[in-house]
Order: sequence, then C-alpha cells, then structure tokens
Amino acid sequence: MTKSQDSVFSEILGTIKSCLPLESEEFNLHEPLFCGREWEYVKECLDTGWVSSVGKYVDKFERMLEDYTGSRKAIAVVNGTAAMHVCLKLAGVEVGDEVMMPALTFIATANAVSYCGAVPHFIDSDFATMGLSPNKLDDRLREIARIESNQCVNRITGRRIKAVVPVHTFGHPVEIDSLIDICKKYSLTLIEDAAESLGSFYKNKHTGTFGLFGVLSFNGNKIVTTGGGGAILTNDEDLGKLAKHITTTAKLPHRWAFVHDRVAFNYRMPNINAAIGCAQIEQLPVFLGNKRNLAEKYKKAFDRNKYALFASEPSETRSNYWLNTIKLLEPYAKMRDHLLDFLHDHGVKARPPWQLMNMLQMYRDCPRDDLTNSELICASCVNIPSGAELAKNSQIAGE
Amino acid sequence: MTKSQDSVFSEILGTIKSCLPLESEEFNLHEPLFCGREWEYVKECLDTGWVSSVGKYVDKFERMLEDYTGSRKAIAVVNGTAAMHVCLKLAGVEVGDEVMMPALTFIATANAVSYCGAVPHFIDSDFATMGLSPNKLDDRLREIARIESNQCVNRITGRRIKAVVPVHTFGHPVEIDSLIDICKKYSLTLIEDAAESLGSFYKNKHTGTFGLFGVLSFNGNKIVTTGGGGAILTNDEDLGKLAKHITTTAKLPHRWAFVHDRVAFNYRMPNINAAIGCAQIEQLPVFLGNKRNLAEKYKKAFDRNKYALFASEPSETRSNYWLNTIKLLEPYAKMRDHLLDFLHDHGVKARPPWQLMNMLQMYRDCPRDDLTNSELICASCVNIPSGAELAKNSQIAGE
Repeated sequence: MTKSQDSVFSEILGTIKSCLPLESEEFNLHEPLFCGREWEYVKECLDTGWVSSVGKYVDKFERMLEDYTGSRKAIAVVNGTAAMHVCLKLAGVEVGDEVMMPALTFIATANAVSYCGAVPHFIDSDFATMGLSPNKLDDRLREIARIESNQCVNRITGRRIKAVVPVHTFGHPVEIDSLIDICKKYSLTLIEDAAESLGSFYKNKHTGTFGLFGVLSFNGNKIVTTGGGGAILTNDEDLGKLAKHITTTAKLPHRWAFVHDRVAFNYRMPNINAAIGCAQIEQLPVFLGNKRNLAEKYKKAFDRNKYALFASEPSETRSNYWLNTIKLLEPYAKMRDHLLDFLHDHGVKARPPWQLMNMLQMYRDCPRDDLTNSELICASCVNIPSGAELAKNSQIAGE
Repeated sequence: MTKSQDSVFSEILGTIKSCLPLESEEFNLHEPLFCGREWEYVKECLDTGWVSSVGKYVDKFERMLEDYTGSRKAIAVVNGTAAMHVCLKLAGVEVGDEVMMPALTFIATANAVSYCGAVPHFIDSDFATMGLSPNKLDDRLREIARIESNQCVNRITGRRIKAVVPVHTFGHPVEIDSLIDICKKYSLTLIEDAAESLGSFYKNKHTGTFGLFGVLSFNGNKIVTTGGGGAILTNDEDLGKLAKHITTTAKLPHRWAFVHDRVAFNYRMPNINAAIGCAQIEQLPVFLGNKRNLAEKYKKAFDRNKYALFASEPSETRSNYWLNTIKLLEPYAKMRDHLLDFLHDHGVKARPPWQLMNMLQMYRDCPRDDLTNSELICASCVNIPSGAELAKNSQIAGE
C-alpha cells in the first residue's frame, strides 16, 4: 500500500530539512558566498580605474584556473555559453555538422551548437553519472556512422559528425575514459561541458582537461562566481593562444593601431569580474569541503528515507556536488511536480532537471537516439538546496 | 615652406599639453572615473550575494537609461557587440543579406553583421560628422538598389539589402534626419550604433533613439562604464520585451521549470556590473560637463595651431565629445603615423581612427562604394586624450 501524497512529501521535506540550518526558513538552491577577499580586489579595481579590459585580475584568474585544474591554458570569457561557442568553432564545427550531446543538459550546450549553424544530435544518459552514456553513444554510432576520408558521417542524414560534448551533470563526472575511446574510434573531437564541475575530478584528473577543450561557468549559481563568466580550458598551447585572440576581437598587438586579422568575438571577461573570481578561487577548497559535508549529510539522511535515493558521486570520481540530487522511487516519481510545488510552498527552492533538449520546440526535430534513461532522470529527479553556506551554518547549528 | 617634422610635432604636442593637467606626465586616451556611489552599490551586491542574474541593479540601470535617453525600452547586455548582434537579428537581418554601414567604425559593427551570416556593404563618411554620408548612401542606393515586393535588392550582387547602421563616430551625431528619409525611401531598417555617443543629442533628441534600435556600449574606454557592458534601445515595447527575452536564454517564467521557447543568447549583464553602471549614470552630467570643458579648451588652443584642426560637434547637435579628434592639415597629414609615435614617446596616448573595415583581410571582398573621405579621415586624424578627469584636474590646475 502506498502512502498518501501529503505524508510522503512531508517525510521528504523533513529529511531535507534535517540536513539544513535550523535557524532558516527559506533555502535557495545555490547561493554564492563572498567571505574572502572579494571586497579588497574589487576595491582595487575601482580605485585604480582598471575595471574593464585592462588590469591584472584577468591574467591572475586565468593562471589560478590553470593551477587549480592542471589545464595548460585557461582563457576567461563572459560566460559558459560564449566559452562553448568558441570551443566548437576552434574544434572546426561548421554549418551543417552534427554534434553528439546529451539530451539532459542546460540549454547553453545546444544553443552554442546552433550558433555554429550545426545540429545537436541527442544521446541518452546513464543513471550512475546522469551524463552521456558511452554505451549508448557507441551503439548509436555503430548504427549510423561511417568513416569517409578520416571523417565521421551520419549515414542517415548525410551530415558530418564533428564532435562529442559530454556534460558533467550537476557536478558528477561523466565516464570520460570510455568517451575518449569512442572519439578516437570515430575521429570525433571531444569537448567537455564542465560548466557545473569546477572542483570535480575523474581518476584524480580535473574535469574539462580530458578533451581538446573544456568549458567552465562562473554564473551566480555556480560553485565559484564572477557575476557572469566562463572559461575555456585546453592543453594545446597554440589553441589556447588562438582562443584568447578570437575572444578579444582578434586585434593585433600595437601601441596605437587598430588592426584585426579575422572575424572574432568580444567575449573577454572584464577585470572587475575576474577580481571577484580570484577571491572566489581562493575559497574553492573551503566551498568544496562544505558542499561535501552537506552532501554526506543528505546521503546519510536519505539512506533512511523510503521514497527517494540520493545521487552519490560515481565510482572513481570526486564530485563537487554542485547540485545535490534525489531520485524519487516508484511509485512516487509520478508525484514529482507536485512535490516541487510542495517544497517551494515550504521554503525549499528545489528544482527539477532541465527539460530534455529534444522536448523544446526549437530542438524537437534534431536527430536523437532512444532517451529512456534521460526521460526517467528528468521525470523523477529533484535538485535540493546545495550552497556552501548551508553546510557551514548547519555545522554551527550542530547535527 | 614647410616646417621640419620635429618642430611641427613639438608644436602639436605643446597645444595638446596646454589643455591638460600640469602635474601629470602621462595622459591616457580615456580613463574611467569612479567618484560616485560605485563603491556603495557594489558592496551591496557582494553583501547580499546578488552579483549575477538576480538583483535590482539591472532593472534600475535599464530604467535610468530609459529616463536619460528618452528611449521607451532599454535592455542591458554584456557588451555593445552583443547588443548589435541582437538588434540585427530582431530587425530580420538574415544569412546572405547586406547591411549598409560606414567603413570608418570599430570592428564590432561589421562583426555583428557577420554573426548573422550577412555581408557589410561599406559607404563613405562626411567630414563634418565623420559618420555615414547621407548623400553618398543615397547615390549608392540609386545606383545599385531596386525595390522588389517592398524589399530592397542589390542589383549587382542579387542580395537583399536589409538595414542601414550608421555610427555616431567618436560621439559626434551623424546626420540622422537624412538617413531616416533614405531608409523610408528604400524600405531599409535603421539601427544606430550609438556605442560611442551616450550623452550626444541630435536636434535635442538622444542618439540611438531614432532608429528601430540603438546600441550603447559601456566598455572601460566609454564615457560611462560597467567594466564590460552594452544596451539595446528601442521605442517599440514589444521588440523591447523580445530583446530582453532572447538576451536571457528565452526561458519562460516559472518558479521551478526550465523551459526555453527558442534558440537564444546568454547576453545578460550581471547585476554587479549594472551596479557600477547605476553609479556611473548618476555622474554622467558631470562627466559630460568636464568633457565639454576639455573640448572647448582644445578647440580654442587648436584655433591658434597651424598644423591641425579640432573636430567640433556638427551643427544642430550636442556631442558628448567622447574622443576628441584633430585633423592634420596638408602637407602634414602624411606625417601622421610618426606623430603618433612621437606623442606616445612623450606620454600622450593618442591613437588614429580604426583601420577602415574594407582594409581588413576578412572584409576586403565586401561590396563598397567610393571611400575617399573615409580614407582621408582615417589617414589624417588623431584622437587625443579625452577622459573626464583631465578637465577636472586641469580646472584645479588653472588654465
């Protein structure tokens, strides 16, 4: 016999709240935390007038990202969408190409493909990672791909398949080793959407550093924020230089002349935003520690909950637990939308995964494989409050 | 008999320096000035955690821009390039269209056209405004255009001509009334590149409010800065709403669901940058006053200089004098590049106009008209230090 909806919802709410600070009544999904030197650095920008393209913080931020991720080059840009756009361009994605990507992602991944005039091709996710399924991708390529003069072509659509863009969903690393093998087999370029996974590692190597390019985001809802911002990671020094060049209008260095050598983008991150980023990166280990504490509390609490499972980090990975996720068990999954309303009504700003890309009107005609797992994840999962400040306070409140 | 190069350069340097603060030895072209409430507003963003897409300053900044310019709607975005891209899209500029624009402009104008897959068509400037010449545009259209089912087509290339994008060069308003007439005659959409002309008026109406859209920039070198930033102006409320929608990923409002209804952009201005913008706009009248004082000093000083003319605001306009400009007289124009080196060597960070768009390798095959005036302006003009702080200090130093 299944319990009444209200008692199920109350128990889930209780389990979530048992992990959160006692003194609060409202819990946002992910709030930024400024308790480092943000102030000092921003003040320096304002005092010196270096708020825009001139100033030391963009360089400093890029070097900090390189140090932290182990990527040879990091290029700071206005946001993750811009970063992905440039990576796809530099990977040679052209008008009419196809790009393999998960259906389960934020819209930026698909939009960046569209900006190149290319077509997203949606592949299913695995339950363990919530990210692109290597097996499903391999099966799909076996079914539709042929290699012609070292290029991968979709036999059904006739379009070239140029790249694979996995997403480290909610911070959990995707099974990247297998994806690398598939990319090699089919001559595809790997670009990692690591927008959500700063601080997440796969076999001790930072996400976003396995592919030709990786993309980070520093939007206000991310683990580290610059207001709005993103970065391109690459281990190829030449591509890194080119990425810097074409994100800064491709102006040739000269003390007074204005000569640009190609059509390029105005995607540079302003110095004042980079200043905030520097202070944030300094706190990243603390943020990660707090978020891990919170995730462990959730995990323990949900082990005793009969209605939902907590999504732990996949094996051989260390997740940043950007957005903690629970999955409703059967037969409660069908109540998911009502649960979201209930949680919001009770001050818990939970959210579902994004609507699957193939369900949006502008992407519904794109090629796609069977998406059974994605549909289940999308319909049954709930992201619950995950900000670093929640663990901090709840420790003070005592568990 | 012409003077020696060195004595000409020394006299020009002397004339420039006679208008600048006595106590300085280095003069940048245009530095931002933060002497208002930037601090207070930025601190509020950091204290509340509202640095990104959530927060009151983006709305406040947009309302301040509407009040100041008289535009019915203003939409804040990441930069002027992004603003122009969206305006062209919303004006219906499509792949293969042509867009009439001056050859004399910053590369963003041409790049934004390229992002739409459209082709810039370069037209000459007038000496008085340094902006798009209505007569030359009219002549060119008479020569090449025909109207087919209410659309303007280039008879030579066969492409549709969709829009005209004049630039208010260095802050001086272009002759916009005549351009409006031409646009009507040829069914062309007018989009004003007012990136440089916040605070500039044509017949008492703010630049950027005459066309279907206007574009502002708040880059660090502009009269008002947000670090990096731009805005779209429009008097069409529906287009304004649409511009807001497609610059913010086209997400449909919902308290938890993630549904987007079209391919759109992540071009929103972060709240922390808007906070700086609000404080800057509060000081705009002071900046404009200081810059006008400086321009008047330059004008008076160059009236006595035999080698160069100061570019005053065109008749029936009020310029923000964003970048003060001098034009070398014959036979001294040919020394221009040496003068730039000389000025830099003596601490005056002067610059030339941008290289003409048709001279850049990526735009050299675009259609263009005779560009004699643009070539002369480009070869003989020099922008001289213009920041608001220069007038402020020099008043203190006494003239």
